[in-house]
Amino acid sequence: MEKNLSRYERGLATLSKMAGKNGEDAILPLGDLGKYIVEMAYGDIFNREGLSLRDREMITVTILTVLGREPQLKVHLNAAMNLGLTERELEEVMIQTTPYAGFPTAINAVNILKQVIEERN
Amino acid sequence: MEKNLSRYERGLATLSKMAGKNGEDAILPLGDLGKYIVEMAYGDIFNREGLSLRDREMITVTILTVLGREPQLKVHLNAAMNLGLTERELEEVMIQTTPYAGFPTAINAVNILKQVIEERN
Amino acid sequence: MEKNLSRYERGLATLSKMAGKNGEDAILPLGDLGKYIVEMAYGDIFNREGLSLRDREMITVTILTVLGREPQLKVHLNAAMNLGLTERELEEVMIQTTPYAGFPTAINAVNILKQVIEERN
Amino acid sequence: MEKNLSRYERGLATLSKMAGKNGEDAILPLGDLGKYIVEMAYGDIFNREGLSLRDREMITVTILTVLGREPQLKVHLNAAMNLGLTERELEEVMIQTTPYAGFPTAINAVNILKQVIEERN
Amino acid sequence: MEKNLSRYERGLATLSKMAGKNGEDAILPLGDLGKYIVEMAYGDIFNREGLSLRDREMITVTILTVLGREPQLKVHLNAAMNLGLTERELEEVMIQTTPYAGFPTAINAVNILKQVIEERN
Amino acid sequence: MEKNLSRYERGLATLSKMAGKNGEDAILPLGDLGKYIVEMAYGDIFNREGLSLRDREMITVTILTVLGREPQLKVHLNAAMNLGLTERELEEVMIQTTPYAGFPTAINAVNILKQVIEERN
Repeated sequence: MEKNLSRYERGLATLSKMAGKNGEDAILPLGDLGKYIVEMAYGDIFNREGLSLRDREMITVTILTVLGREPQLKVHLNAAMNLGLTERELEEVMIQTTPYAGFPTAINAVNILKQVIEERN
Repeated sequence: MEKNLSRYERGLATLSKMAGKNGEDAILPLGDLGKYIVEMAYGDIFNREGLSLRDREMITVTILTVLGREPQLKVHLNAAMNLGLTERELEEVMIQTTPYAGFPTAINAVNILKQVIEERN
Repeated sequence: MEKNLSRYERGLATLSKMAGKNGEDAILPLGDLGKYIVEMAYGDIFNREGLSLRDREMITVTILTVLGREPQLKVHLNAAMNLGLTERELEEVMIQTTPYAGFPTAINAVNILKQVIEERN
Repeated sequence: MEKNLSRYERGLATLSKMAGKNGEDAILPLGDLGKYIVEMAYGDIFNREGLSLRDREMITVTILTVLGREPQLKVHLNAAMNLGLTERELEEVMIQTTPYAGFPTAINAVNILKQVIEERN
Repeated sequence: MEKNLSRYERGLATLSKMAGKNGEDAILPLGDLGKYIVEMAYGDIFNREGLSLRDREMITVTILTVLGREPQLKVHLNAAMNLGLTERELEEVMIQTTPYAGFPTAINAVNILKQVIEERN
Repeated sequence: MEKNLSRYERGLATLSKMAGKNGEDAILPLGDLGKYIVEMAYGDIFNREGLSLRDREMITVTILTVLGREPQLKVHLNAAMNLGLTERELEEVMIQTTPYAGFPTAINAVNILKQVIEERN
């Protein structure tokens, strides 16, 4: 990514690449809050080196599963598939959370994964 | 791993490989609870296909960071390094949690990571 | 408030002043649970000295945002506006939670704030 | 605050004013994570208009109480007192959380408040 | 229960007895995740000695109330009534959570209890 | 319990019977917060009919286990044993939480149970 982009421009490019129109529709109408998300989450954090974008997205799906943030999980499951994570891998992420966060969390996430897969087909 | 091992034997082998004596010391004195952890977490889940052991451990560190389960995070940071995850990668996992779970969670995890690194040197 | 009112009467008066019919509709059908809420939350806590009602309501909106208790957040956003907190101030409360509790929590709260504003207009 | 300071410089000035040496000691050794905290939490969020610094700090104490983030609560109770919030007001914040987050959360926070008051005397 | 049943068979029998068709419909379509739930939650844990099935179900309703896992709470309120827990006892469980987890958690659970009672009549 | 006791007197009698000197030492120094705990948790809730004191205490241990409120869990494990719940039953409560809240929560609770048993011997 070019160095002389602003944090916001860099973040918007990353958001678009990762989450497409769904991501923009969820974040851009949020005013200043949306601006911080684009700048900080996408401009700063997702553009860091030291871990691949695929790994960062896998970690993000894990967090949203465990915290039960369902609207955001839906956006990031789409982003994860856009980055090449397979349905099987995403299901494995959810199964991996069960010893640490219990079954209900994983059940809810798997049901959202099924919805997302259906909507993409 | 040989198919005709029991779930417990397979789990104990995986636990030993991943977490060494620290892991056994934390889990084996727990009686039936420890038996379920060995069988379910290590015998069943960590032995599944579809995701590498390195990815499963990265996901586990993410969960324990976000939920603030500090004694277990310590054990799994050691396990993660035994499996080849670098200090830098583990710090990146923690930084990746900040837009979704806030800074205090990540601060506490990074301070435990520093302790673990010091104890291993 | 007159001293010789019962805790329940004092609580009901405070609830009505703060949350109006919405608040009563959410709480009064709850039987004994509703009685404790009126007595303890509204009769005891919201009637304490040492902090203004406006500050107590701002704190309550903060808690409900962070814990993601959406039906209650809706009631208290209305109460907060009845007490004079502005839309801008309530949005700032939500933005102030982001460094400590992450973005998804704040996004969900801001979306509920938008709904509440629309319903009041 | 002067407009042409960088986010980091502005954040560091705010952190120093609010939390003094304790705040810097907790955050500056954290590397990139510390940099984001200074820039985002202190440079961006605490410097926003629309809500007084005193209100922002009261909200922050509320969040840290409810989430049980004890090391950060300690730093922010000191910051809150530096900004003029009284011991009584801080105790009222904690009492205000009880109908929404239960007693144990508030008990732990009040015990930390007592420690902080003792250490400041 | 016969000793020579597999964990899955034993779990499925327990699930059917406790939760009936609702439980099976929620869990069996979940693939491997559903298999672990049947084996571990129902085959292992609910079949342990040392605590009655009624007590185990009361504990489960408590956990799901406190964690706000609503779809699972609905299934387990039905299971609890199938095992002889009365509406009054289940409401008391929810009221007992209020000093420790706050009122909003209990309000949401009582509203789900009302729905379940209506659907069973 | 005599009807014409105040909520505070009734709560203090219940607290003393259940938790003895440990409970009083944890709660009475807390000022107004302690007064609400005695009145509301012990005077109102633990004195309700419809569920035995043993069941109410079992539910309380469940909640504190799942929320990880360790100082309060310690007090209530003692209270539970004073009310006749056995070590085995309390361990079973913790094992029953594992499918719903994961293993780390239960591990921490079992370790506190061991401490409490040791201190009582």
